[in-house]
Amino acid sequence: MTAVLPKQTPKPQPVKTAISPTRADNYAQWYQQVVRASDMAEMSGVRGCMIIKPWGYGAWELMQRDLDRRFKETGHDNCYFPLFIPISYFQKEAEHIEGFAKEMAVVTHHRLAMKDGKLIPDGELEEPLVIRPTSETVIGEAMAKWIKSYRDLPMLLNQWANVVRWEMRPRLLLRTAEFLWQEGHTAHETFDDAMVETRRMHDVYRDFAQDVLAVPVIPGEKTANERFPGAVNSFSIEAMMQDGRALQAGTSHYLGQNFAKSIGIKFQTREGTEAFAHTTSWGVSTRLLGALVMTHADDDGMRMPPRVAPWQIVIAPIMRDEAEKQKVMAYCESLTAALKGVTYEGQPLRVKFDARDIAGADKKWEWIKKGVPLLLEIGPRDVDGGKVCVMRRDKMSEGKRFIVREEFIGNAAAELAAIQQSLFDQALAFQRQRTVTDITTKAAFVEYFSKDADNSFAGGQGVVRAKWSGDPKSLAMLDELGVTIRCVPFDQDGKTGVCVLTGDPATQDVIFARAY
Amino acid sequence: MTAVLPKQTPKPQPVKTAISPTRADNYAQWYQQVVRASDMAEMSGVRGCMIIKPWGYGAWELMQRDLDRRFKETGHDNCYFPLFIPISYFQKEAEHIEGFAKEMAVVTHHRLAMKDGKLIPDGELEEPLVIRPTSETVIGEAMAKWIKSYRDLPMLLNQWANVVRWEMRPRLLLRTAEFLWQEGHTAHETFDDAMVETRRMHDVYRDFAQDVLAVPVIPGEKTANERFPGAVNSFSIEAMMQDGRALQAGTSHYLGQNFAKSIGIKFQTREGTEAFAHTTSWGVSTRLLGALVMTHADDDGMRMPPRVAPWQIVIAPIMRDEAEKQKVMAYCESLTAALKGVTYEGQPLRVKFDARDIAGADKKWEWIKKGVPLLLEIGPRDVDGGKVCVMRRDKMSEGKRFIVREEFIGNAAAELAAIQQSLFDQALAFQRQRTVTDITTKAAFVEYFSKDADNSFAGGQGVVRAKWSGDPKSLAMLDELGVTIRCVPFDQDGKTGVCVLTGDPATQDVIFARAY
Repeated sequence: MTAVLPKQTPKPQPVKTAISPTRADNYAQWYQQVVRASDMAEMSGVRGCMIIKPWGYGAWELMQRDLDRRFKETGHDNCYFPLFIPISYFQKEAEHIEGFAKEMAVVTHHRLAMKDGKLIPDGELEEPLVIRPTSETVIGEAMAKWIKSYRDLPMLLNQWANVVRWEMRPRLLLRTAEFLWQEGHTAHETFDDAMVETRRMHDVYRDFAQDVLAVPVIPGEKTANERFPGAVNSFSIEAMMQDGRALQAGTSHYLGQNFAKSIGIKFQTREGTEAFAHTTSWGVSTRLLGALVMTHADDDGMRMPPRVAPWQIVIAPIMRDEAEKQKVMAYCESLTAALKGVTYEGQPLRVKFDARDIAGADKKWEWIKKGVPLLLEIGPRDVDGGKVCVMRRDKMSEGKRFIVREEFIGNAAAELAAIQQSLFDQALAFQRQRTVTDITTKAAFVEYFSKDADNSFAGGQGVVRAKWSGDPKSLAMLDELGVTIRCVPFDQDGKTGVCVLTGDPATQDVIFARAY
Repeated sequence: MTAVLPKQTPKPQPVKTAISPTRADNYAQWYQQVVRASDMAEMSGVRGCMIIKPWGYGAWELMQRDLDRRFKETGHDNCYFPLFIPISYFQKEAEHIEGFAKEMAVVTHHRLAMKDGKLIPDGELEEPLVIRPTSETVIGEAMAKWIKSYRDLPMLLNQWANVVRWEMRPRLLLRTAEFLWQEGHTAHETFDDAMVETRRMHDVYRDFAQDVLAVPVIPGEKTANERFPGAVNSFSIEAMMQDGRALQAGTSHYLGQNFAKSIGIKFQTREGTEAFAHTTSWGVSTRLLGALVMTHADDDGMRMPPRVAPWQIVIAPIMRDEAEKQKVMAYCESLTAALKGVTYEGQPLRVKFDARDIAGADKKWEWIKKGVPLLLEIGPRDVDGGKVCVMRRDKMSEGKRFIVREEFIGNAAAELAAIQQSLFDQALAFQRQRTVTDITTKAAFVEYFSKDADNSFAGGQGVVRAKWSGDPKSLAMLDELGVTIRCVPFDQDGKTGVCVLTGDPATQDVIFARAY
């Protein structure tokens, strides 16, 4: 029997979101709230310095583990250099720059002492020490000492460490005074070897960003004005945040023989002559955690890609009394054990049984805001039916599904793989939707970047891909708009067109965007 | 036919060692030479700060990986706190101490600037910042903020980080101004919970030292005078170096409610009242790399236990001409691939094919000094015979063995396990040999520790296990001898005897030793 229901006009309801303000209301504040609500990080009592909390640090550790495996597979060795750099190391660099001033933390004393009841720095150092903003110079100096002959090449070093840059406008995860990063530094016999290395590590970053972080990126080369100082070629991967701004997510530089000449990395060649090494450097940082949030989070909080989710599955028991408790807890424990026995990409599933004694709704929303990929809520009825109640964080609107326990266990790894793919697909669709390729005139270009200078989520702005002649004069106009050339993407059509800024003939496509 | 050889008196030959001086000649210098020759670490241009080179850092990474797994299995989360601590955090502590002075690096400026052609610190900070000597206070302050209720307990945090203590007498790996470590900090509802945690982490360190580092340790509790400041109970593991000195290789502290009271870690109890948490802390550092050297190295250099050896097997090709090269290289490559397919304790073997174009003898001795567990030298005759020439670093005197290739591959994991065990057994035998248990009088005690105050390798000194009454007056005498009580070992006989220092009745056995 089919009942014909009376037609109803649905009442428009304000959608309640866990994060307030929403992306559309205030993107910058939404970002801060997501980082706080997901419990990934918070600002500390020290200006510009953050505390990376377990949920954020757990994701960073998984990033490290994956990248480190890729670095080792490509022949690199890790090492560790001192936190301190004598101030004299910067003297030469400073002499070349008019009005040199660099924001760096400087250690001037080696003791604390009490004077008139107040604690003061004591024991002044003969030479002040700078906290490393990068270890480039000290690693370069060590290479100059260690490398004697072509037999010592290539030298492929990487360091995982904290570095400090005294940021005037810090921003949680994205730009902090202290941050964690890795810096690769390598020395080679020839241009070819060094360029292969530079491109290889650039590829490593591209694959890592897309496959592990589920962040689609545009790989390309930096234009001369955006190059790393001293580099001959700089390559980057550019990601797109949900306000349409670009974020440089990783860089790889070929430094030619410039760096080797300035710091003295020489070697005896196969022919017995002396030559300067060709060097490279490349790095990524905890800023990637910020990129992860700005790519995947929604108005209910973070959404962690399974490959970097500290817990991939969380099991939350739901029960009202002692009798229910006994059977629900036992069921959850055995379910946890069974899931931990499942392998996902060569590793046991990361499963958390959250038995904390807090209200079910609070617990559920805590995990939604953290963005655990799969949340299982288990009540007495699920136990009786031998089922699990499953919520996929990437498809909240689809609501809960009730799946037979054994079926879920058998499919858990595939389900996580599907979430990983779905987050990437959503981000890629967003990137494509926000990439404009049909702007060919200066007027249209200016109009595009003027109509929504805040690059808000709602504004719909993004990046412009267009021809550029390379004329340095065109850069001033970009400055005025607050727009930069992010990169020259590798996939060029090779056709000659018209420079979007000057109207001159131009063959190369570049990516224009506002950027973090 | 058996020839009867004329009897010869073997000419005593000076044994040539790769490390000079030997342990017996000059222990302290031998140590420096081993660290240098093994290429594990070197001092940097910055006073007291070291560069941890790939072979040392690789071992540290393997230690980290194993410890981190143990920490996670026992429920701990990693996090990261800022490098900088405002000077005011130390004010309270300093007010309690007459003539307070602490060796710590202090940041006073946030900029470098040029003045009259010279680079100087600029931009003075309103409040100086101390480089963390430990993150205890900042993690404690965060816990005070984060913990509200018994539901938030236990809070089980760990941090891997660099810390700085301005050492006046730095010593490579063992005592450096900057070092790497982990610090665990946990908060609990009850004494019982906190004590279980303290002892659990102490057990983790004991098992790790013995099973992974192959370093036998004496686990025990610190006496009151040797306790960590603020701790109610301190537990340590004490290792014995080859000069007979003890080295504290890890500590775990129960801090009672003292720390929580001083920093304000309160929570609402199950009964609705307010209580201070019981806290613990525990840590190990890169000093363990120094312990590894002083436990296992011999007069030919380092001997790496397989579980922390960055490469467990190194393959060195030996060939004289192009024809030999072709077949030897091909054989080595296929051997390397086959060995990489072998699993040792759940991980693929770490195998290095060292194809560098350097003299065979140099290459061989480089790996001996680094202490790779298994060194394979492959020449054309081995290729023809389908064999491998194997040298076990822990049994150099047994020389080379020629083993059928497939047989070696099949036994490689077992061989590594045997080396791991053999290094532990050798160290344990040394520890036992150097532990004196029959000293019962003060005179004998003083004589023992006076006859070889340098505790040299050759001197044969070590630790004394004897009864101690606990009389504080006896400590002055120990001071004079430069001897300390390392710990009260757990395996007590419970019998009443005579205090070795005072002659009074005493029931507790303690470990006396000179220490690093």
